[in-house]
Amino acid sequence: MPQLYPVHKIRDKEILEKFGTNLKVIRKEKGLTQEELAFRSGLALSQIARIETGRLNSSICTLITIAKALQIEPGELLKAM
Amino acid sequence: MPQLYPVHKIRDKEILEKFGTNLKVIRKEKGLTQEELAFRSGLALSQIARIETGRLNSSICTLITIAKALQIEPGELLKAM
Repeated sequence: MPQLYPVHKIRDKEILEKFGTNLKVIRKEKGLTQEELAFRSGLALSQIARIETGRLNSSICTLITIAKALQIEPGELLKAM
Repeated sequence: MPQLYPVHKIRDKEILEKFGTNLKVIRKEKGLTQEELAFRSGLALSQIARIETGRLNSSICTLITIAKALQIEPGELLKAM
């Protein structure tokens, strides 16, 4: 019996993976390691790592905190989503 | 003795109130009621109302769901934040 996966769960997974990829690309463009971004943002390194691998559904406040740490517009983290 | 309020809590409050205002402005520009947005997005009416008054720290998946329901780029909801 195949495992049934609710549609919105699949959609959420795709959203979070895309957000994670956007974050990783921009972080690298800025020449920052995950540790440096964690330090700048005040977030835990493990949180940054889980966000980048699409395993964390962060909040809007966390998204704004990350955008400020990267000195970018928050919308840049949501490109092509 | 004045109530001490952690700085990040004040900052979060401001972020959520600005997000709520952005959502309300865009929803009205689109000529939608809260009920219509709730129906389109699949979110509860109470959730839409609490988001618009800055009392809910929504997730990124909820933000994307709302943007799709409004047929806008997600970044538009994060203007001037």
